[in-house]
Amino acid sequence: ALQWDPIDNKAVDTVRVLAADAVEKVGNGHPGTAMSLAPAAYLLWQKVMRKDPSDDQWIGADRFILSVGHSSLTQYIQLYLGGWGLELSDIEALRTWGSLTPGHPEYRHTKGVEITTGPLGQGLASAVGFAFAQRYERGLFDPEAAPGTSPFDHHVYVIAGDGDIEEGVTSEAGQLAGTQQLGNLVVIYDKNNISIEDNTDIALSEDTAKRYEAYGWDVRTVDWFKTGEYKEDVQELFDAIEAAKAVTDKPSIIILKTLIGYPAPTKQGTGKVHGAKLGADEVAGVKKALGFDPEKSFDVDPEVLAHTRGALERGKEQRAQWQKGFDAWAAANPERKALFDRLEAGELPEGLEAALPVFEAGKDVSTRAASGKAINALAAQLPELWGGSADLAESNLTTIEGGGSFLPASITTPEWGQGNPYGRILHFGIREHAMGAILNGITLHGKTRSYGGTFLQFADYMRPAVRLAALMDIPSIFVWTHDSVALGEDGPTHQPVEHLAALRAIPNLAVVRPGDANETAYAWLETLKRRGGPVGLALSRQNLPVFERGDGEASGDTLASAKFVGKGAYVLAEAPNGTPDIILIATGSELQIAVEARQVLAGEGINARVVSVPSQEWFAEQSAEYQESVLPASVTARVAVEAGIALPWHTWVGDKGRIVSIEHFGASADYKTLFEKFGMTTESVIAAAKESLAANGK
Amino acid sequence: ALQWDPIDNKAVDTVRVLAADAVEKVGNGHPGTAMSLAPAAYLLWQKVMRKDPSDDQWIGADRFILSVGHSSLTQYIQLYLGGWGLELSDIEALRTWGSLTPGHPEYRHTKGVEITTGPLGQGLASAVGFAFAQRYERGLFDPEAAPGTSPFDHHVYVIAGDGDIEEGVTSEAGQLAGTQQLGNLVVIYDKNNISIEDNTDIALSEDTAKRYEAYGWDVRTVDWFKTGEYKEDVQELFDAIEAAKAVTDKPSIIILKTLIGYPAPTKQGTGKVHGAKLGADEVAGVKKALGFDPEKSFDVDPEVLAHTRGALERGKEQRAQWQKGFDAWAAANPERKALFDRLEAGELPEGLEAALPVFEAGKDVSTRAASGKAINALAAQLPELWGGSADLAESNLTTIEGGGSFLPASITTPEWGQGNPYGRILHFGIREHAMGAILNGITLHGKTRSYGGTFLQFADYMRPAVRLAALMDIPSIFVWTHDSVALGEDGPTHQPVEHLAALRAIPNLAVVRPGDANETAYAWLETLKRRGGPVGLALSRQNLPVFERGDGEASGDTLASAKFVGKGAYVLAEAPNGTPDIILIATGSELQIAVEARQVLAGEGINARVVSVPSQEWFAEQSAEYQESVLPASVTARVAVEAGIALPWHTWVGDKGRIVSIEHFGASADYKTLFEKFGMTTESVIAAAKESLAANGK
Repeated sequence: ALQWDPIDNKAVDTVRVLAADAVEKVGNGHPGTAMSLAPAAYLLWQKVMRKDPSDDQWIGADRFILSVGHSSLTQYIQLYLGGWGLELSDIEALRTWGSLTPGHPEYRHTKGVEITTGPLGQGLASAVGFAFAQRYERGLFDPEAAPGTSPFDHHVYVIAGDGDIEEGVTSEAGQLAGTQQLGNLVVIYDKNNISIEDNTDIALSEDTAKRYEAYGWDVRTVDWFKTGEYKEDVQELFDAIEAAKAVTDKPSIIILKTLIGYPAPTKQGTGKVHGAKLGADEVAGVKKALGFDPEKSFDVDPEVLAHTRGALERGKEQRAQWQKGFDAWAAANPERKALFDRLEAGELPEGLEAALPVFEAGKDVSTRAASGKAINALAAQLPELWGGSADLAESNLTTIEGGGSFLPASITTPEWGQGNPYGRILHFGIREHAMGAILNGITLHGKTRSYGGTFLQFADYMRPAVRLAALMDIPSIFVWTHDSVALGEDGPTHQPVEHLAALRAIPNLAVVRPGDANETAYAWLETLKRRGGPVGLALSRQNLPVFERGDGEASGDTLASAKFVGKGAYVLAEAPNGTPDIILIATGSELQIAVEARQVLAGEGINARVVSVPSQEWFAEQSAEYQESVLPASVTARVAVEAGIALPWHTWVGDKGRIVSIEHFGASADYKTLFEKFGMTTESVIAAAKESLAANGK
Repeated sequence: ALQWDPIDNKAVDTVRVLAADAVEKVGNGHPGTAMSLAPAAYLLWQKVMRKDPSDDQWIGADRFILSVGHSSLTQYIQLYLGGWGLELSDIEALRTWGSLTPGHPEYRHTKGVEITTGPLGQGLASAVGFAFAQRYERGLFDPEAAPGTSPFDHHVYVIAGDGDIEEGVTSEAGQLAGTQQLGNLVVIYDKNNISIEDNTDIALSEDTAKRYEAYGWDVRTVDWFKTGEYKEDVQELFDAIEAAKAVTDKPSIIILKTLIGYPAPTKQGTGKVHGAKLGADEVAGVKKALGFDPEKSFDVDPEVLAHTRGALERGKEQRAQWQKGFDAWAAANPERKALFDRLEAGELPEGLEAALPVFEAGKDVSTRAASGKAINALAAQLPELWGGSADLAESNLTTIEGGGSFLPASITTPEWGQGNPYGRILHFGIREHAMGAILNGITLHGKTRSYGGTFLQFADYMRPAVRLAALMDIPSIFVWTHDSVALGEDGPTHQPVEHLAALRAIPNLAVVRPGDANETAYAWLETLKRRGGPVGLALSRQNLPVFERGDGEASGDTLASAKFVGKGAYVLAEAPNGTPDIILIATGSELQIAVEARQVLAGEGINARVVSVPSQEWFAEQSAEYQESVLPASVTARVAVEAGIALPWHTWVGDKGRIVSIEHFGASADYKTLFEKFGMTTESVIAAAKESLAANGK
């Protein structure tokens, strides 16, 4: 039952006043929803969620996602009241340089913020990933426990707004959440009928309840206007949350009808209160309406704070209670506990490299096929690895064979058999954007590693989620196959040309384009070793030769081992005489062209070194000495070759270098014809090499 | 009433056989839907749509969008049968170099293809733009006509599939289509329960009919399994289409339940028939099942072709009938006819330059504000100009004042007043991706020019649509404001850093970043003059100085006129002594920094030229002589400054140049602090200039 006292009302009103004051002080921001969402947020943080303010990493905690990131005060003020580390001075420092309270909540920046939000739709979509992860992790550690009894059971709560309801990524994620019957997900949709262009009637007329019912969600409506006047019936909202929690086979959405900016005397319920400060008179009006002193700012009654900081003690108790269950589980499940500990430590099993598939030279293997083999070899060692595709499993080769489809057991298909709620194979449908957001949610939630595949072309569809992964510095893994015009017959709508460049442009995203099957295996190993920003693997559709390699560095005509992939770039083939006249730089499917060109040039007495560059970003992390050893500054005759635009290579080759690239859209034909027509040939590289040598006076 | 004879059945079966043969010949492609959609496509092209195969530009025609672009044969075979210019040899050349039948339908490549499709969701979303455009154009030319009586009345037909239903962009567009009550839109959703990962139950469990009802659509279901066996009841589908047309205040979707690959004996109804050739035995089985000779390929009964080519005569008659109405309209509406003729010719009114707003030097004006003024000044002269924003109108400043909201008259809000079905102000809601697709649809449909605004950050959300505009070479206009970290307090989730680079990477997209208010006005003029690829305007949130300029080229301390914006780059300020020691290159809000640096350097005896680069792409179109005049090869001391990553500038400055850039994500603070902290300052440019001079031995 809900315990709600007058002090709770006072605390909620304090939230409103602080929100108005904070925006007023900095002069910009979003006071409206922070004011009207005060009761809902307070209810979640003080009455509903299991949370321990002393440990934001507690795995037993309920999770909270503020999908309306612009209303960051909604979260910051609760973190302040609950004792998470924010103090009044932090609220006062809202949206200023270096503060803990930036304009939108930022993961890794403010304790208690579990995801960076702001770009609308991302939070609500990623919440589905959180809910996926909770179920998968339960499956890893405690699959037999009765529902609600496991230390790995918890809920994911979301506060969403009109923008989330309008952005398409949430439609994708909402469909999936329905299919997946995510009983652990509870969304409060703040329906206030106001967005930046004022009344949402101009662009939102749908019956949202009906739409979510169509997805298979549990839908409830809490209408605080139902009495004819605006009355915040907290008990009604609490009851709706409890009822939603009781529905364990469907995700729940509670449509909460609120009055934005309540109780701003003249601006409530209008667009004026959404994204701008209220103005001094209006702030004073709010304070008067709530019985606060209009002369005072940031005025928090010590009794209120003492009351709300009770969250610390409450968290300790919840934590202690939970710990008993966890300890009992640990005692009963030593092997699973060992796995848990390894994942908690962020470690891989020892000797994982030995598990990598080894591809024999002489055969032709596409890097997507090599990736599929690597995934399966690693998955056999890593129960924490799971993933799938946006309806391109057989093209992306992302399926963990025998892993079971992550689906409710009620779903059975001829191709995939019966669903397994704890399965390792994810089916995203044709929803690249939701896939990206869900992968981020999975990665943020817990200790597992997850990946999702599509064609590199469709990285564009998921770009906002990819960027957020980079911004949050989280290791989501994207598998992008069919990585050039060599995709072939599907034509220019499906052929990436500018994508490698555009993705490399995103700070903190590593784009990794391995040049043969063994590079691909090591690319996967390196990707799993890393725990920082996201990795996007760009993989070929077409078969590529598997290079005959030595065990160490390149020497004479012996190619280097593929184990140097983690360096980002390495000397694959040394100049025949050991002193390069020119350096040929290549990635992915064009690496073979560079190797062939080296051979032809050797016949003409030109000594070319071939540098393989699986990842510009990983190379940038290496020491200056290593970088110089691979690309000596003294060798300014250089050619880069890549089946995409030249943009990323200018700094690699310099003024006297040349780039063999594709600067236009592709075409529909077989890939060999396309490579020929578009100049992705050994001859082009040789000609470019001679041009570069000439530019260097040779 | 539907006239359907045995020869029509034979023709439909011929479609299936041709589809199987064509994919078999090239060895790859998508036979399944081309086979099972044969009756629906044939019905539309031969029995339903008003089309004239002899004129694919006929404005009175119904429009057709194959949103399932992978099923391109669905359209190609109808174009062949209907006499649009494709012959059997073109069907045989499917998916090969230089053919008229590429893997996906390509606009401007194959006559009768009205939009490039393939990336799923785009066609169905752009269809909403086609439907918008039909209504707007009717409003321009013939607003008083009773419904269905105007030569500007027609329908937009779409064939969509499961991918379209899953992609979020169509949810956004579907919501908007419902709000807009688009009675002219009829969608056939081919529900065959199969996508690449086989049975769609693994990822699609929603009640799609209910979802579209929730959007406010007219929803019908045609179930060809309803008798217990699969029977293609063409009459039922025809009746559903007629009923859908009769609903004039809602868009219509007909959920058509089909058996993919029918009648492939062993593969129909499975994923095997979706995206791969059937194999010789299966193709033979199809032919046997349909009474065709399994020994023959590409075998078309001349009687069938003669029957279907009746479309040519039918088109002529429909055209003649329509022409009467058009001529009557033209006679009765001479002024509108004059407008029509101007738009048909793709011309602007004479002397439009004189209408541009002129901004006085000395004031500070953001380029978004200047853009708003330019839009309104131009809109007063150009009734064909309309546009809006994805819920950021007051930030993007995209509103045509007094233009009326493009909305049904039943929608009235306090902020915008009553909706006007022919209004010029578009409200997209928080749906950037649908906005992009809809703008493309508007642009493809007709003669008007339309634009849509959001923050530059959220260009990422609409990127797939932007790319398609570039690929189709159509002049959609994107207004991207808040174009750098100087967006300020909203922080890194909202601050573009890599976006200018990533957008410039898209071939055929012009990114235009004007450097002051007057450049902005000319940027708009130049954008409207152009009819090729899309333009994205990158505009500042913050105020910028309006430069004091002369009327011509730069000379001495007189800055050049802004009229050179269309050149892409021009000398804004000449070196004080007329001979540049160094060239300072800048765009947008950083142009002022370059101008200030020139002044400071002059004080130290260093003669710096300032080059303003509103558009790299427009500059690339200029003659080599002009380019050399702006950036003489002999001056290799160069500095570029832009508040984004350096990537796009390396080729502009060369090895001895320097770039002042931002290589990391932004932060939440006021913009002046951010520019200071991130080195976007005059001091940085001066230091870089001295470095570059030193690298040049000066």
